Amino acid sequence: MTENNFENIALNAKTASKKLASVSTGVKNSALLKIAETLDLNKEKILIANALDLANAKSKVESGKLSQAVYNRLKLDGNKMRDMIQGIVDVYELEDPIGKVLMQRSLDTGLVLTKVSCPIGVLGIIFEARPDVISQISALAIKSSNAVILKGGKESVNTNKAIMETIQNALKKIDGFPENVLTQVFTREDVAEMLKQDNYIDLIIPRGGNSLVKFVKENTKIPVLGHADGICHIFIDKSADYDKAERIVIDAKTQYPSACNSVETLLIHKDFSKKEYLLNVLRNADIELIFTPESWHKEYSDKILAVKEVSSLEEAIEHINKYSSGHTDSIITESRENAEIFMNTVDSAGVYHNVSTRFADGFRYGFGAEVGISTNKTHARGPVGLEGLTIYKYKIQGNGDIVKDYVEGKKKFNHKNLL
Amino acid sequence: MTENNFENIALNAKTASKKLASVSTGVKNSALLKIAETLDLNKEKILIANALDLANAKSKVESGKLSQAVYNRLKLDGNKMRDMIQGIVDVYELEDPIGKVLMQRSLDTGLVLTKVSCPIGVLGIIFEARPDVISQISALAIKSSNAVILKGGKESVNTNKAIMETIQNALKKIDGFPENVLTQVFTREDVAEMLKQDNYIDLIIPRGGNSLVKFVKENTKIPVLGHADGICHIFIDKSADYDKAERIVIDAKTQYPSACNSVETLLIHKDFSKKEYLLNVLRNADIELIFTPESWHKEYSDKILAVKEVSSLEEAIEHINKYSSGHTDSIITESRENAEIFMNTVDSAGVYHNVSTRFADGFRYGFGAEVGISTNKTHARGPVGLEGLTIYKYKIQGNGDIVKDYVEGKKKFNHKNLL
Repeated sequence: MTENNFENIALNAKTASKKLASVSTGVKNSALLKIAETLDLNKEKILIANALDLANAKSKVESGKLSQAVYNRLKLDGNKMRDMIQGIVDVYELEDPIGKVLMQRSLDTGLVLTKVSCPIGVLGIIFEARPDVISQISALAIKSSNAVILKGGKESVNTNKAIMETIQNALKKIDGFPENVLTQVFTREDVAEMLKQDNYIDLIIPRGGNSLVKFVKENTKIPVLGHADGICHIFIDKSADYDKAERIVIDAKTQYPSACNSVETLLIHKDFSKKEYLLNVLRNADIELIFTPESWHKEYSDKILAVKEVSSLEEAIEHINKYSSGHTDSIITESRENAEIFMNTVDSAGVYHNVSTRFADGFRYGFGAEVGISTNKTHARGPVGLEGLTIYKYKIQGNGDIVKDYVEGKKKFNHKNLL
Repeated sequence: MTENNFENIALNAKTASKKLASVSTGVKNSALLKIAETLDLNKEKILIANALDLANAKSKVESGKLSQAVYNRLKLDGNKMRDMIQGIVDVYELEDPIGKVLMQRSLDTGLVLTKVSCPIGVLGIIFEARPDVISQISALAIKSSNAVILKGGKESVNTNKAIMETIQNALKKIDGFPENVLTQVFTREDVAEMLKQDNYIDLIIPRGGNSLVKFVKENTKIPVLGHADGICHIFIDKSADYDKAERIVIDAKTQYPSACNSVETLLIHKDFSKKEYLLNVLRNADIELIFTPESWHKEYSDKILAVKEVSSLEEAIEHINKYSSGHTDSIITESRENAEIFMNTVDSAGVYHNVSTRFADGFRYGFGAEVGISTNKTHARGPVGLEGLTIYKYKIQGNGDIVKDYVEGKKKFNHKNLL
């Protein structure tokens, strides 16, 4: 795709986003239900497209060019299709995040300031193998009135095309739903072009591995929402309850080792009495333990765990604030005071007490759906739901009001919150 | 300053920010009062330093290297010092934005998720001539528990040093207040180094002209909060009340023409009956009117106004969404319906009805103080007060809870908002 073409795509998305900003909740919800219905009617077509991708991928797995894990994520079946469709219905059921009055204040008699939530504009989403991301992101974008340009993984290109075509067919049937709200692009060159469109694209969300996220962050002036690493810690304090420590560490390391919220480093207080016993239990659970400093900044995404002894809560916090990726870190302790210090001082999106790091997830937090998990320090942090796809504007309703009157003292502000 | 030195400064600021995150409201407020008191005691020293800067600047004004406007902004006097000190007391009186519970939700029995506001970390502030910005930014940073690295304009270097030295002396007297919370740097090279510190600096706020903001945005991977242009519009609708239109346009163009919230383009509906009369009134108010398309994307910051006739509300909105810098745009109309459409569809930080664009300001909005005005579509938009210097973290308090129990269906989430 040439540069000019991509600028057109981005401009069309921007135009769509401006129209979408005033589309009613009713129209957006009808669109979501129609998408769910149309996907259900076209299940077979999508599964056939998926079979084609799987056949291509299989030969790559056999020749060692693709991992079995990626192959598994690529595969759709009846159950996954049902979950995909249910995911859209879930978003339909969420409250509309747009047009909410966040604050209302009288500035003076007859002069009212209102802060209202509104869409961000155009999102650029780059994701890897899982094709079900398309319908999830499309639903979240529609509900939050944002236009979106999506680039999926090349392994799932046939599946992605079939899903997007189905969604577009559904949207065409909805009166008053603008065109170009959803656009799919396909090539590596498209990603490069997307990252240049800072005049039209307002937010980039990369969903995928470390190297994708780093590449995106280093090659765009557009704000990026996401996380590169997931180096999560568990600190077992002196006063930790042994049983809680054991269940939590095993859950956080083995329940789904390749998840970004799995634990990568275990810090143990030198006076925790059952340290050696615990380490043996972990070894027996097939976890490989590593005791070298090189391991402290590694994300293994596997049943491998870095272990370090620390002599105090402070040392644990210092280690975490130095090596953590700011995703999620947990303390196991029976000391309420130490838990408070840990949660207030560790500078991460999630700070937990006696809880597995695996809870860091939009569904588990009750957000209904998530766009991804952010380790940013601005805009949105942690699991990002619909709210993270909104910003706000300030409206003022007046009656001929001018600043000169206030500067010259003829009038005075009487700031008073109405809401 | 060498690259290594700057990395040290940034690292020290980061360390300070982590300590500051758990400093109490009481300590922060004592620090603010001590700063106000110490500035009052050192007024003379600061005015002497300012006299030196003014003397240097005067010769530059005479040789045409510096504008009289910059000279005027540079000048401190007893009144400005009093305002500076009052500004700090105002920040002292604001509610602490840190540690606020923004949401609390039970995920399951004994498993509680809490969203708490927290500081962003380290701010990099780059500002031009006005030396009173130092004390204002320092106060806002302290109140929001952020460390800050400040780079002021070179014209006010002596004044800046004297103010910062006074503030640092005050902070040394406060028990429990960490060192390196505030750092001042001085050279152009420092700015270049600051923009590279994306490992340590979390947010850059440039306060100054268009070219400064553009330079910053183009040369850093750190999120930037601010606005480059201030191209604000007023649209006079067919049904506009003439008197309101006249007072508002004159206020928005002449009350302070160099402000970013001054109007730059006037759109007039072709059926507004008193168009020619109004244009004559504007000319008589010493406003130069320009009718060429080249003027549509210019920020004159002077008593010059672009004027364009439009044939509909839609054409006005389209023009604004194309040429506005997204700062503040106002409609003058007696049609409530047209005002609603305008305010919902114009994609700017401020959208006003029958109000001068000059109201876009943190003090006028009742925020107590402002860090600047943002035209960003993420994080913070419009006038940014203390809240814009915060982000949040998620705490989870549990009792040995693991994700496996939920995945395997032994337990179920019962998401219930507690707050």
